[in-house]
Amino acid sequence: MNTRFLDVLNGRPVDRTPIWVMRQAGRYLPEYRAVRAKHSFLDMVYTPEVAVEVTLQPIDIFGFDAAIIFSDILVIPEAMGMHVQFLEGRGPVFDAPIRDFRAIDRLGSISATDKLDPIYEAVRLARTELEGKVPLIGFAGAPWTLAAYMIEGSGSKTFQHARAALYTHPDAMHALLDRLTREIIIYLKNKIAAGAQAIQIFDSWAGQLTPQQFRTFSLPYLKKISEAISATGTPVILFARNAAHSLDELSQAGAAALGIDWQTEMAPCCDLIKNRVAVQGNLDPLALFATPGEIRAQVGQVLENVGSSQRHIFNLGHGILPQTPVASVRALVDAVHELSPLYHREKTGVTL
Amino acid sequence: MNTRFLDVLNGRPVDRTPIWVMRQAGRYLPEYRAVRAKHSFLDMVYTPEVAVEVTLQPIDIFGFDAAIIFSDILVIPEAMGMHVQFLEGRGPVFDAPIRDFRAIDRLGSISATDKLDPIYEAVRLARTELEGKVPLIGFAGAPWTLAAYMIEGSGSKTFQHARAALYTHPDAMHALLDRLTREIIIYLKNKIAAGAQAIQIFDSWAGQLTPQQFRTFSLPYLKKISEAISATGTPVILFARNAAHSLDELSQAGAAALGIDWQTEMAPCCDLIKNRVAVQGNLDPLALFATPGEIRAQVGQVLENVGSSQRHIFNLGHGILPQTPVASVRALVDAVHELSPLYHREKTGVTL
Repeated sequence: MNTRFLDVLNGRPVDRTPIWVMRQAGRYLPEYRAVRAKHSFLDMVYTPEVAVEVTLQPIDIFGFDAAIIFSDILVIPEAMGMHVQFLEGRGPVFDAPIRDFRAIDRLGSISATDKLDPIYEAVRLARTELEGKVPLIGFAGAPWTLAAYMIEGSGSKTFQHARAALYTHPDAMHALLDRLTREIIIYLKNKIAAGAQAIQIFDSWAGQLTPQQFRTFSLPYLKKISEAISATGTPVILFARNAAHSLDELSQAGAAALGIDWQTEMAPCCDLIKNRVAVQGNLDPLALFATPGEIRAQVGQVLENVGSSQRHIFNLGHGILPQTPVASVRALVDAVHELSPLYHREKTGVTL
Repeated sequence: MNTRFLDVLNGRPVDRTPIWVMRQAGRYLPEYRAVRAKHSFLDMVYTPEVAVEVTLQPIDIFGFDAAIIFSDILVIPEAMGMHVQFLEGRGPVFDAPIRDFRAIDRLGSISATDKLDPIYEAVRLARTELEGKVPLIGFAGAPWTLAAYMIEGSGSKTFQHARAALYTHPDAMHALLDRLTREIIIYLKNKIAAGAQAIQIFDSWAGQLTPQQFRTFSLPYLKKISEAISATGTPVILFARNAAHSLDELSQAGAAALGIDWQTEMAPCCDLIKNRVAVQGNLDPLALFATPGEIRAQVGQVLENVGSSQRHIFNLGHGILPQTPVASVRALVDAVHELSPLYHREKTGVTL
């Protein structure tokens, strides 16, 4: 039973830094690509046996310290009645993005449909198959990130429609964000009931907001979700990408940990949040294109930037890229296993 | 003769905050679109009369306090022998991106070709036609930003090839960046000789680097360029987008002003750089989709964030978007004209 990941979230000492990797069940793995060749992306998400198979692959292959259920953040808008397709090379595309805000009133609740049942079933099944080996993470997109996709209709360099709406229709935007917040809380509580032992919230487009907008249109909703989920006893990791301007506020939003992106400097972050919460991150995903020796040096740098007084979960600062060599992931895990115990000796009572 | 823009760069008091807008000669203007309908983008860049026509349009229409010569940052790689096309909706695309670093040795020097002569001629002509009405800005892309395009071959969400090269071929990357630095300095000195009165350096992809990489692979080259250009007596504005982590270092890199993007908070920036240099920015370009009243409020907020002790050039925090309503640009200019004098009264001796 490897509890390191939950131990760090709960503020207990560990013998070494736990590690998992965002998108660890993903295209860089030949075993994943073999499954993907037989199913569409959404089929994988909505077929519990398949979702569980790819969820467990990186645990078996690399011995990561946590599993994260294979899924997608856009299942919530889908379950609310919006249709989304995943197009090769373009990512998610909505058939009918929200451009008239009256459309918000026509969105259904995820409670009124059984569309998400296969996801809860996948969580249940993954938890059983893990047999307590490592904890299982559930996740959701943040309200702003979901709203950005629902209005824009796809990924975007500028999220022009969604961002313009913050200026032109602030009340409608708050209504949408509030609505999404409530649905996300229901969704996450269902995932927890099915067996998820920690929750990560992805605010992938937090950095598309001005700092002022982030504090108005994202942070209050992140706080509401974190507090509602933490109250159930399940720890929450908030990953608001490129929102370093608000780390202090984020560290007081009810989460157990903050995800730190690779564009943010770890040392000043740690100084700022003063071990109030754990940090998770933040190796540059591109560092995995370097030699094993250089990867080891970069891992050492992240550990050194965090230091020994800050609670830390090792991760990349963004999702692992599909082209990443598998050998690099092994070098990464080895380096964390070998280099991180040094940073935990004092806390676990071993003298240097 | 409106010298406000140069006055701020040179540390002289002004009666109100000068304003210009990045991409002010651009697609949001019907007058620009009329010219663009008759020419390809690169034709416009390389035909002096046309480049000058669109350069002057926003000055005549809005009374901005500076003109910026219509051009593109990729003319340097072009003049070095790389072929780039501008595809509608995709932006610039290189025929043969650099993937083998031996290709760097085959790049020519801009001094060995007359390819850039029409650009220098456009600067000369624009300067003449402006008749001293407002100063003329010349610009170049930063070495890292040019290298990123030359290696990646186009814009990119991750700049995966260019960024991986920083880990796998750091020496070759430094050789390329050093080479580009020398070409950029030649180019800018030619532009100054032709009449450019200030220079802006666009490090558009600075935010694609880790803070450590920015300080290794971008900042030293920005400093080299700023110092070489400043030594000619021409002020330099450094716009390193999403590199707020290094503002302190940037403010000591030999520039007269720093461009501040809209994702960065102006007030702490100003505290940090302590009026060592002027700041330029940083209204969110999306704010121009709001009502005139809201635009005025947002302009007021930027002026308030900067305060009266910091030297300031008003601008957007990124280029103006093609869909921006012209009436919004007028509201923006009016608001700066009306609200900013308040922040300059003390310095110009007028009592409140």
